[in-house]
This record gives sequence, C-alpha cells and structure tokens, in this order.
Amino acid sequence: MQLDHSNTEQLKQQLTALQSQYQAFQAKGLKLDITRGKPSNAQLDLSNALDGILGGHYTSADGTDVRNYGGLDGLCEMKKMGAEILEVSESEILVGGNSSLTLMFQAMLQACVFGFEGPQSAWQQQSNVKFLCPVPGYDRHFAICEQFGIEMVNVAMTETGPDMDQVESLISADPQIKGMWCVPKYSNPTGTVYSDDTVERIAKLGLIAGSGFRVFWDNAYALHDLGENTTSLAAIGQLAKKHGCENSILQFASTSKMSFGGAGVAFMASSSANLKAFKQTLSIATIGPDKVNQLRHAKLFPNIASLKAHMLKHRELLKPRFDCVQQHLQDAFADNDLGQWQAVQGGYFISFDTRPGLAQKVVKLAADAGVKLTPAGATFPYGEDPADSNIRIAPSVPSLEEVGLAMQVFVCAVRIASLEQQLEHAR
Amino acid sequence: MQLDHSNTEQLKQQLTALQSQYQAFQAKGLKLDITRGKPSNAQLDLSNALDGILGGHYTSADGTDVRNYGGLDGLCEMKKMGAEILEVSESEILVGGNSSLTLMFQAMLQACVFGFEGPQSAWQQQSNVKFLCPVPGYDRHFAICEQFGIEMVNVAMTETGPDMDQVESLISADPQIKGMWCVPKYSNPTGTVYSDDTVERIAKLGLIAGSGFRVFWDNAYALHDLGENTTSLAAIGQLAKKHGCENSILQFASTSKMSFGGAGVAFMASSSANLKAFKQTLSIATIGPDKVNQLRHAKLFPNIASLKAHMLKHRELLKPRFDCVQQHLQDAFADNDLGQWQAVQGGYFISFDTRPGLAQKVVKLAADAGVKLTPAGATFPYGEDPADSNIRIAPSVPSLEEVGLAMQVFVCAVRIASLEQQLEHAR
Repeated sequence: MQLDHSNTEQLKQQLTALQSQYQAFQAKGLKLDITRGKPSNAQLDLSNALDGILGGHYTSADGTDVRNYGGLDGLCEMKKMGAEILEVSESEILVGGNSSLTLMFQAMLQACVFGFEGPQSAWQQQSNVKFLCPVPGYDRHFAICEQFGIEMVNVAMTETGPDMDQVESLISADPQIKGMWCVPKYSNPTGTVYSDDTVERIAKLGLIAGSGFRVFWDNAYALHDLGENTTSLAAIGQLAKKHGCENSILQFASTSKMSFGGAGVAFMASSSANLKAFKQTLSIATIGPDKVNQLRHAKLFPNIASLKAHMLKHRELLKPRFDCVQQHLQDAFADNDLGQWQAVQGGYFISFDTRPGLAQKVVKLAADAGVKLTPAGATFPYGEDPADSNIRIAPSVPSLEEVGLAMQVFVCAVRIASLEQQLEHAR
Repeated sequence: MQLDHSNTEQLKQQLTALQSQYQAFQAKGLKLDITRGKPSNAQLDLSNALDGILGGHYTSADGTDVRNYGGLDGLCEMKKMGAEILEVSESEILVGGNSSLTLMFQAMLQACVFGFEGPQSAWQQQSNVKFLCPVPGYDRHFAICEQFGIEMVNVAMTETGPDMDQVESLISADPQIKGMWCVPKYSNPTGTVYSDDTVERIAKLGLIAGSGFRVFWDNAYALHDLGENTTSLAAIGQLAKKHGCENSILQFASTSKMSFGGAGVAFMASSSANLKAFKQTLSIATIGPDKVNQLRHAKLFPNIASLKAHMLKHRELLKPRFDCVQQHLQDAFADNDLGQWQAVQGGYFISFDTRPGLAQKVVKLAADAGVKLTPAGATFPYGEDPADSNIRIAPSVPSLEEVGLAMQVFVCAVRIASLEQQLEHAR
C-alpha cells in the first residue's frame, strides 16, 4: 500500500474495502488482549513444580531455617543466582520479595526521602529534581517518578540505546537531573540492546552529573532471548567500578518472567555503600523477604545453566508469537511508510510507530473491533507521546492463532487510520 | 527475699551466696536466647504442609490464576480470613505480602509523604509531628516513627490498656499529635488486653484529635491465646464507624505467628477512603502480593474454625514455657518488691519490671552468664526507659528445660542487682 502514489479516488476505494474488512472483524465479536507483558499460562506451567519442591526440607545451604523471621538481604543461594544474572559479585546483591518494581520504588524512596548518603542527600531537600527517561519506555517507571514528584525529561532511543550525546549534554547542563531509567537489554518496548559503548558511557555518567546521581538499571530481560543466541550486554557494574562510579548504578532483575509473574524473586545490585543505606531503611520496613519462596527458586534453578535451559522453554513458547507479529508487520508495512518497527531478539514487546498523529486513533479502532492494545501514550512520561505515534504490542499471552487475528485487526486499523489521514490532507 | 528487713551483714551474706550461684551458672557455658518473639521450630513444623498443598492447582475460588501478576489487594478467600480475624467486612480488608510490618511502614509512608487525603494532608507538610506510644511497647513500631522523624510521646500502660485520661488530655491539648501505636490484645510486651471501654475511647479519638489523626492498631496476637478461653477484644472497626471515626483507624494482622514467621500473609483493614489512597500508592510500588502463598494459606486454613484449631496446637507448645517463666517469677518475687509483672493470657511476651535503675544491670548480668535478653530500654521510644526497669522476656524459642535454666539465671541476676543496689543505698 503506497498512499503517496494513489489519487484521491483510489484512496477512497481502498478505504471502502478496508472498512468492509474492518466490519467483518467487528462482526466476529473478538475479545483479544495484547496489552501487557505477562507470561502465558503455558509459560507459568513450566514452573509448576515450585509448589512442593522443598519436600519438607526448609533449610538453606548455610543452615538457615527459611520459615522463620530474618535474613534481610536474602538466602546465599539466591544471592549467587542474582550475581550471575547481573554479573556482579554475591556481596553486591540483595534478594527481595516477589517484585523488582517494589525494590525500584524502595530505591526511589531511599533516594528521595531518606537519602543514600544521609538525610541531607535526600532529593526532596531540593526542588525541581529531574529524571531522564529514554522514550518510548516503561509506564511503571514513569509512574514511580510521578509519585515522587520528579520531573521527567524525554531522551530519544536509538538503535544502540539512549541518545548518549543528548544524555551527556543534558546532564552536564543541569545538575538537577538526578537520575535516569534504563531497560538495557531488550528494552521495553523497543527491544533495543544497549551497545557496549552506550553502557560504558552510562556507567561513567556519575563523573559529569551532580551529586547523588543514580541510574535505575532495570535489567528485566537479562536472559529472555528470542533469537538462537543470546545478545550480550556489557556488565555495567564492572564498568562503573572501573570509572569509580559504582555508587551511581542501581541494578534490578527478577524471576517474574522466569517462574511466576506474581510469585517470583526480585534482585537488586549496587555498591556496598548503597546497599548499606538501602538495608538500613529495609530493616525498619520489613521482617525480611519470603525465604521459603527463595529456597523454592534455588531448588528449581540450582545453577545458571538450569536457569538458561528453562529460558529456552519460554523461548519455544514466545518465539512463534513474536515471529507472527513481525511477519504481519513485514507483510503489511515493509514496502511503505505507514509504520516503523524494530526487529527484536528478546524481551516481551514490539514497538510500532504509526505515521505521526495516528496512535490514539489506531488503538481506538482496534479496541472497537475487540483487540485491546496498550493505551497510546503509555510508553511516554505523563502518558504524552508528542508525535502520537507509538504503540506497544505484547503478544505473549494470547494463543498463536489469536495473535495472528489480533495482528490482522491491527494492520487493518493502521491502514484505515493512515488512509483517512491521507484523505484529510488531500482535501 | 525481703531486702528491706535485712541488715547490711545479712545482705552481704545473701550476696555472697548469690554470687557463688551466679559463678556456677557462668561455669556451665550457657548460650540461651530469650530475646525475640519468634515461633519455635516445633511451631513452624505445624505448617510444614504449606509447601505442596496446592497439588498443582493454582486457581483461587474466583478463578484467578494466582501465579501471574495482579490482584493488588489479595485473594477473596484471604480477604475473608482477614475479615474474620479483624472483625470487619471483606471490603475493608487488603491482603499483602509476608510482613504486616511492611504494611505499617507503607501506611506511615502514605500518611507522612503522600497523604491519606491528598498531598496537602501529608504530615511531612507540617513540622513537629508527634505520636503517642504506650510504654512499654514494641521497638519496631518506635523504629518506624524514628525513620520518619516523628517525635514520640510516652503514655503509661495500665491493666486496661493505655491510660486513656492521659491520651485524651494530650491529644486535646496538642493538634500535632497525629497518631498512636496500639497492640490491643496481648500487648507487646505487657500482655495487656485493652478493655471494651478503652477500645471505644480509642475508636473515637478522631473526634478530639486534629485532622489526619491515625491509630495504628497492630492486632498481631488476635488469636494467640494461652489460656483455656480466648480473651475477647472489642471490635474497634465497628466502634469507630459508630462514632463516624472510621478514617482514623488502621488495623493490621498477619499469619506470621500462625504459619511461618517469614513467609506468612499480612492483612490491613481500614475505611474505603483510606484503602483507596493506600492502594493508589501500592499500585505504583508493586505488581501485587504473592497470591500463590495466599492460596496456600487459604488451603491450610480453609475457615476460621480450622485456624483456631491450629492455634490450639501453638498454645500446647507455648503454654508450658510461659507457665515456667511465670512460676519462676512467682517463686522468686511474689513475696517481695524486687520485681513486678503481669500474668499473661496470650501473646509472646512477659514484661518484668525491676526496681528502678536495674534493668540494664540485670540484662548485662544475664548476658555475662550466657542468657541473652532483649536490651534494656528496647521497649521504650529511643531505647530510653526513664526508670531503667523494664525487661521483656520472650520464651517461645528455647526448649522448656532451657527456659527454666534461663529463668534461674534471670532470677539470680535480678537478686544480685537488687542486693547490690540495696547495699549501695545502705552506705
């Protein structure tokens, strides 16, 4: 479909055809949902052995009775797992509860309210604290900033990660920029893997930033490959140490998309100074994480090899769905400019850009034909996509057949919205 | 032992005898710990069926797949359990993770930083926020106040709960008093059960307090009876509603001392307005509680009767230990004024008051003979017991024999400290 080469009459004819196709979709009474990056039931089934895996043995490798109170930073075997996932040493890991988002929230609480370097370092002592947000990005990250009243500044994503020239120039010019969100591998939603150069430049941002600068490094998809081979990501912890910036990096990960979405185990990694401050607050806020669930995970994934083998089973379930989405996009938009997307090698999302000004319309058209998409704008701070063009596609939950059907509707919706806009412009 | 009726020579003889008894204890090389209110291994064993109890069925009563993300306020069957424990309706319950302390911390965060009634209601907008703390009380409550920079004001505990004349007069005189900690049943550490009159007076404190007043009602021992019969506690939620003060009460409970200390399920109960504000923040801070563990608990305790039957098994293990402590105290101090304590009918503690000025000394003497006690002062805000007399005894973990031995050492330590003080005064 080459809109720019068609005259108005041809466009109208195409629109009529598309509208009858659209009405046929509506007549099906579809109820499809490709909004959130959740594991499917089949993926969850892969870890069903978790319940009962202890066989009555509630003792960790170092002899801890995991049933009782205590153990603020987690079991030794889970520290080992976290250290291998995030490529840091075990002493740099804290093992939390079922939600890495909670660790991120608590880290933001520490930075804003209590201070990582004593009460005077708390960001709330200052007005106008700002955060850099590579866009499109993850709505739950942005929501944490909003909750703490932090002003978000958009930064463009490139194929190698955030536009580092822009990042460095913004930070150099404004000491009120106190941090930055990153999903460095298979970024949500673009699927971008940060290049080694990008990682190193982020690792040393502390050298040019004002005091108290913290990168929130949400490595949610560290082992979540869709391709034959894993895409490597430079180890930011080691690079930060090389440049003396280890205090400016807070890393996060979890098993939520390895075992159970709502009952996994979360990890945080940082310098000993950061962990010490974080744990001081944590010791006030909890009697310790659920060590029984940690031990269950240690039994299910006794070493990093078993974890990687497990991830291959996830890949088997996920890859056909992602291939399906990409094939539909390829077939519909490879030869025209109605949409842009990036082929992804991992993670949970495909990010699609319509022509400017059409994302909201496409999402509404899809919804009215029974296909629920993430709200347009959700991938931007404050829900505001300046170009109104980005749409996040999350195909993990529906069946392969449903993904195909949803994509047919999606493609139809993009075409209709684009055609109508073209006709509007032609007037 | 009647010190006041002895002359100096007699006192010195008694002291010599006690010191040789004490040295004999020291020679045993004891390592006993009666510091914290933890379940013993035998108590934890009572719930070992939790792991594997789902038998591969991860679906809640309303059809929720408990493995995945979501369900911010918990499973319906656990709301029912929380509602029965706290005597509120299911709509007034939120079911959390493994720590009621975390819910209390988050409630304090809401009140201080985000505000239960919008940002302007946040206590941190005001200077000099104060909290009433019935003493002796629970050190972890006081630590939360300290963390948020809230000034703590001591209130005396009586046999019917906090001295309500004092509470009402303080609150009437000072609108900066924004809340109050309460452990209303088998209070930590005195074992006090608040009388019906006390509960009703607390339920309507909102009528005389300044705006935003919140009672933190930590009902940690709601079903933790040691006596033959449960001691009833008036339902504060219902009383607060009667007086139109439902927004001023935040209730907490957990199964930590029913199932596993570190892997139980926590509850919070409050008005719909409070829960709405709390959940708004919670929705930013987590992907939801561990619903798998919630479902496990719903299976282990399918109804309140099964939960109460389970608590009888805890009672069987705990009661002999508490009887042992109380017998030792009775034998040693019933006929003199060297110590005061209250017979307890439930909970995890016995609170003992030495003659003024001796608690630290007793704790040190016991420690030097291998018996670890909660640090003197820990039961008071800022760790400061004005009379230096309160000591918390927590006998749940050691064996019955060990409890007996620890109490022999304890009694000996109290006697030595008292005698030395008496001799000091006699000079």
